[in-house]
Amino acid sequence: MLGGDRLALARLITQVENGTAAVPAIMRAVYGRGDAAYIVGITGPPGAGKSTVVDRLIAALRAESATVAIVAVDPSSPFTGGAVLGDRIRMQSHALDPGVFIRSMATRGSLGGLARATGEVIKLLAAFGFDWVLVETVGVGQTELDIMKLADTTVVVLVPESGDAIQTMKAGLMEAADAFVVNKADRPGAPALVAELRFNVHLQASSPAARRDVEWEIPVLTAEAQNAVGIAELLAAIRAHRAALEQSGAFQTRRRARRRAEFESLLVERFRARLEQVFETGDLGTTVDDVLDGRLDPYSAADHVLARAAGR
Amino acid sequence: MLGGDRLALARLITQVENGTAAVPAIMRAVYGRGDAAYIVGITGPPGAGKSTVVDRLIAALRAESATVAIVAVDPSSPFTGGAVLGDRIRMQSHALDPGVFIRSMATRGSLGGLARATGEVIKLLAAFGFDWVLVETVGVGQTELDIMKLADTTVVVLVPESGDAIQTMKAGLMEAADAFVVNKADRPGAPALVAELRFNVHLQASSPAARRDVEWEIPVLTAEAQNAVGIAELLAAIRAHRAALEQSGAFQTRRRARRRAEFESLLVERFRARLEQVFETGDLGTTVDDVLDGRLDPYSAADHVLARAAGR
Repeated sequence: MLGGDRLALARLITQVENGTAAVPAIMRAVYGRGDAAYIVGITGPPGAGKSTVVDRLIAALRAESATVAIVAVDPSSPFTGGAVLGDRIRMQSHALDPGVFIRSMATRGSLGGLARATGEVIKLLAAFGFDWVLVETVGVGQTELDIMKLADTTVVVLVPESGDAIQTMKAGLMEAADAFVVNKADRPGAPALVAELRFNVHLQASSPAARRDVEWEIPVLTAEAQNAVGIAELLAAIRAHRAALEQSGAFQTRRRARRRAEFESLLVERFRARLEQVFETGDLGTTVDDVLDGRLDPYSAADHVLARAAGR
Repeated sequence: MLGGDRLALARLITQVENGTAAVPAIMRAVYGRGDAAYIVGITGPPGAGKSTVVDRLIAALRAESATVAIVAVDPSSPFTGGAVLGDRIRMQSHALDPGVFIRSMATRGSLGGLARATGEVIKLLAAFGFDWVLVETVGVGQTELDIMKLADTTVVVLVPESGDAIQTMKAGLMEAADAFVVNKADRPGAPALVAELRFNVHLQASSPAARRDVEWEIPVLTAEAQNAVGIAELLAAIRAHRAALEQSGAFQTRRRARRRAEFESLLVERFRARLEQVFETGDLGTTVDDVLDGRLDPYSAADHVLARAAGR
């Protein structure tokens, strides 16, 4: 893969997705490579036109000869892989371009595992040498927000119709966004949505919870991605955010925080796997069964099981 | 609290919500009490009229002199506690009834912690002696589905307008639901939604993923909760499901599975807390910093840190 073999890259991604025994060795082998890749997250509710925005961003970046990898993640369900693939068809114009690599990922098992696997896939793509990695997630739930934490710059795409989804996740979106794009900006509700978002951005900026590690006023942009309108402005905003992060030092401190979160996730995932073993092997005698049958309260058993699970 | 003091109950719930140091002792003290309470989960997208359904269920159960506790959980955001409380106003007709206890819970810290805390609050309410515990969650995300796993019977409330939310979470909803209620059934789209749900229920029943531990055909009911229409039928369906669970033995095996999930959550939560300590204290020398600064790959450091975190 490090020699530029795309098929090898695809195979390694599958290993990482499936969480095979080879993953630690793979991740060790690519470790420290690919720090130069810039990671952009694109999220928003279903129907906001994220895939079209991504498609147009790819075209803009390719026009500058930059290489681009896209990871499209659908955490909503293990059964909707088809929907993601359907969306991907819109990106098919880049399918034969050797400077573009597109990969879909859907939930396999735990949602926590999905964020971990996405982080590792990003590392593989960065190590392969892509200049940009775009991570698109469908939806606005907690897992999507977790995945967005993997990005250097997060773009939230909304349309006037996404009202309910915005209300549900407003706090989370406000926290995650480095830029808003109101797509399909020719529709009636667009100016009102822009105004509401600007108001919220303003509120957020003056709240104690605001991130103060970088001088950055979150822009609320408009676009008609279908007609490639507003894409150059979006790319300029992403670059401006990158420059602001690098100047303030936040770029490094955030990558450090991300490494910490990734490390914790890895440790928790490993702990869970060991816990499964402890539960299955029964080598704690009757302790586990006593808890499961309601004869022993879990708090009294916790420390004993904890020590055993970690020591294995 | 065990003597029937509601104020004491409310105080203990606050302790559990805040995850204070007293929680293990509290949970040990109520352990094994309250197995008789029947737990019903009510979930569905915002605006489906869940609170009204719950309100009418309370009235129906109180008419039979059964006691009822309600836990209303809003996992969507730490900032929307107000919205939950607003919804609760609709239940105020029961506020002075000593046979009814209503409690709202919102996210504090981790979402995983919310499901854990909700499970513990249910145990407190059951130990207090309520015959029924109704757990209402706002939304249809993963956390809501996790919380629904705490219920013996899960009711999913939908309205014709909730189309998008249904699409997003269809697989999860189909998996969680023991009964569907199409509320506001006088609205135009209701018959089509009923037909679609029946079709999906039928598909689900013949899929390999169907739960086979109980003979139960998931009913798709209609209601106009605002006018108390369809509530008696819903209550009858809940009771029929309970009878089916008890006859098949699934009631016991599912409660065992729930204890296992709760035990695992507790262990993971505790592991996370210890991990925080390990990261903060720095008593692993430079290992943690090496990972965070990108000098050491996390896989190489994992086992060392894992053993340390669990052994503390």
